[in-house]
Amino acid sequence: MTTLQSPRSTVVRGSQRADYDRDTLYPILDAGLICHVAAVVDGEPRILPTAYTRVDDAIVLHGNLHNGVLKALLSEGQLACINVSLVDGLVLARSGMHNSMNYRSATVYGRAELVAEAEEKVRLLSALLDHQVKGNSRYVRPFLAKELAATLVIKVPIKEGSAKVRNGPPVDAEADYALDLWAGVIPLQVGVCNPERCPRAPAELGIPSHIADFLAD
Amino acid sequence: MTTLQSPRSTVVRGSQRADYDRDTLYPILDAGLICHVAAVVDGEPRILPTAYTRVDDAIVLHGNLHNGVLKALLSEGQLACINVSLVDGLVLARSGMHNSMNYRSATVYGRAELVAEAEEKVRLLSALLDHQVKGNSRYVRPFLAKELAATLVIKVPIKEGSAKVRNGPPVDAEADYALDLWAGVIPLQVGVCNPERCPRAPAELGIPSHIADFLAD
Repeated sequence: MTTLQSPRSTVVRGSQRADYDRDTLYPILDAGLICHVAAVVDGEPRILPTAYTRVDDAIVLHGNLHNGVLKALLSEGQLACINVSLVDGLVLARSGMHNSMNYRSATVYGRAELVAEAEEKVRLLSALLDHQVKGNSRYVRPFLAKELAATLVIKVPIKEGSAKVRNGPPVDAEADYALDLWAGVIPLQVGVCNPERCPRAPAELGIPSHIADFLAD
Repeated sequence: MTTLQSPRSTVVRGSQRADYDRDTLYPILDAGLICHVAAVVDGEPRILPTAYTRVDDAIVLHGNLHNGVLKALLSEGQLACINVSLVDGLVLARSGMHNSMNYRSATVYGRAELVAEAEEKVRLLSALLDHQVKGNSRYVRPFLAKELAATLVIKVPIKEGSAKVRNGPPVDAEADYALDLWAGVIPLQVGVCNPERCPRAPAELGIPSHIADFLAD
């Protein structure tokens, strides 16, 4: 079963833009660099913006053993709410009321599982590296046992969720189309700038091919 | 008093990158397009990614009257946790352990206040438009009374908060600097693409100057 719809994941507002299919959510999750993780700590909301990746049907998070939000997620019965949002453009309408953005947003819910086994930690942390720059996990110096021991790795199985996507031109009130006002979309895109070599890296060391491929993409 | 430090806003991990000064937080809040709002609904975490702006010492949010997260924030005693994160670069280190990102992140806490008065709603919604494209609130068709009535406008006074900022090259384990591995930063930047005119806007209508200024910035 592929649908992620549940009572808590059902989009109430703008439901015409909502989708509950893994085939819609996963490409959004795979396109983001950071997610926002919400947890309840002492009855209050907390947010953690953090790197992540998706591996199969789970979100992978990592962090320090003492991270408050991650520790809260591992408390019994805790639910994680994770969102990835990509802003694709400013939608400039003829009225402020219909001003909007084009975006792709995916929210998932699940209960965190601690990943304890070293080999599995390496697999998931490598996936996290490769999510950012494909092939990077095979280039860097391998993880050490003490590094793995100091790193919390968490899987949040994607059990429920929703996507919301807006694209296309402004949608104005019908009467407003007659107004002598410019309207349209200003697309936004995350661009990659020239890499800045670490001052302590040898100048003669060229950019490795997997990073060159990333820059060319 | 300018510090936003409090028990709940104190950064535990990476505290050397933390700052509690409004002078640090406000430029981050002013540079973002969307924020993530976390609230507790029936004891569970919820996230709303949404447009926002800062006006004086408050975050301004808006939405539909039936928005679940915004309604929760207006329940008695509810705390809002709001984060704005800007990703400035991929930090490619010599080990996966020290792989990182450059970023600016601001988290604020406060208790939401409903804005009921029409004139104040117009002022805050106009600020929200101008946060995205300066001068746009004076260009678009003015808000109608019925539009204001259908829009929830909320102010969250910024009482507590923290910023976390990382910049600069990778910081590797000392022994790893001797490795024959490229390391450095790949800066990321949100770029503006050519505007796409609404198909229903007259072709002879040029781009207004405030939008041209935005594109040139």
